[in-house]
Amino acid sequence: MKWSELAGQPCPIARALSVFGDRWTLLVLRDCFLGVRRFDEFRERLGLPRAVLTERLRLLADEGVLDRVAYQQGPERHEYRLTAKGRDLYPVLLAIAGWSDRHMAGEAGPPLRHRHARCGQDFHAEMRCSECGEPLDPREVEVRPGAGFADPRARRQRPAGG
Amino acid sequence: MKWSELAGQPCPIARALSVFGDRWTLLVLRDCFLGVRRFDEFRERLGLPRAVLTERLRLLADEGVLDRVAYQQGPERHEYRLTAKGRDLYPVLLAIAGWSDRHMAGEAGPPLRHRHARCGQDFHAEMRCSECGEPLDPREVEVRPGAGFADPRARRQRPAGG
Repeated sequence: MKWSELAGQPCPIARALSVFGDRWTLLVLRDCFLGVRRFDEFRERLGLPRAVLTERLRLLADEGVLDRVAYQQGPERHEYRLTAKGRDLYPVLLAIAGWSDRHMAGEAGPPLRHRHARCGQDFHAEMRCSECGEPLDPREVEVRPGAGFADPRARRQRPAGG
Repeated sequence: MKWSELAGQPCPIARALSVFGDRWTLLVLRDCFLGVRRFDEFRERLGLPRAVLTERLRLLADEGVLDRVAYQQGPERHEYRLTAKGRDLYPVLLAIAGWSDRHMAGEAGPPLRHRHARCGQDFHAEMRCSECGEPLDPREVEVRPGAGFADPRARRQRPAGG
């Protein structure tokens, strides 16, 4: 399998990684959630080569994760803003942060605190079953083919160079 | 910032991506959760160059995500099994699958069904606050420096070539 073939796989994880599974892309998305919108600010924070950052932002815009919006004419400049589809990636980032806080923090504890404004508490994210509300254990989950397993509409391909 | 400097960042997402943020690594982990344990089976399923797969498995073992266990002598062969730290990555994979099912499925629906043996229902994963149990909205979360923000113990570096 080539990386460019991921989007056509019948695995939801492979499909998603065709959008954000490249090195740096999840850090670009992290910065979006922290309010970063402009090319130069992404570049300054991440220190990526221009061509790499350009390509990552282009793909995220093409996939509908970010909106590319002009904020200045002559020369034209653009901002990148999370769409609803992009904001729905928040659980992915919270799950990553939660694992890191549990397993990669030093003895002093996690580097960041997350506070839930709604309840006023420092929290961690918990992944629960939508039906019974219990935490999910991989040994209690069965995976079976679903209705869209062989859906040709989903078998999109990114260009080979993409 | 270089990729090899991620582990030393005070951001939990950057630290975690130093372990599994490379292309293919999350697909290796997906396969681990599906019961794949042997080099040749990973290789056959993913079609990676041997050197890339070797490097990814080595890093996951070095980081304590996988146990490398000999199952044959002469020639010696190894299996790779998720550790407790590795199994704790399950919410990351479920969050990715959930986003994909919502935003990347064709009209026929998601390619896979996830059934929770505990309650017997097909489910999707929901990310909730550990304190109040409500779903988490990024606009309701504040991020602040925590006790380990500048913890030198956490500032580990991967080798520059790693």
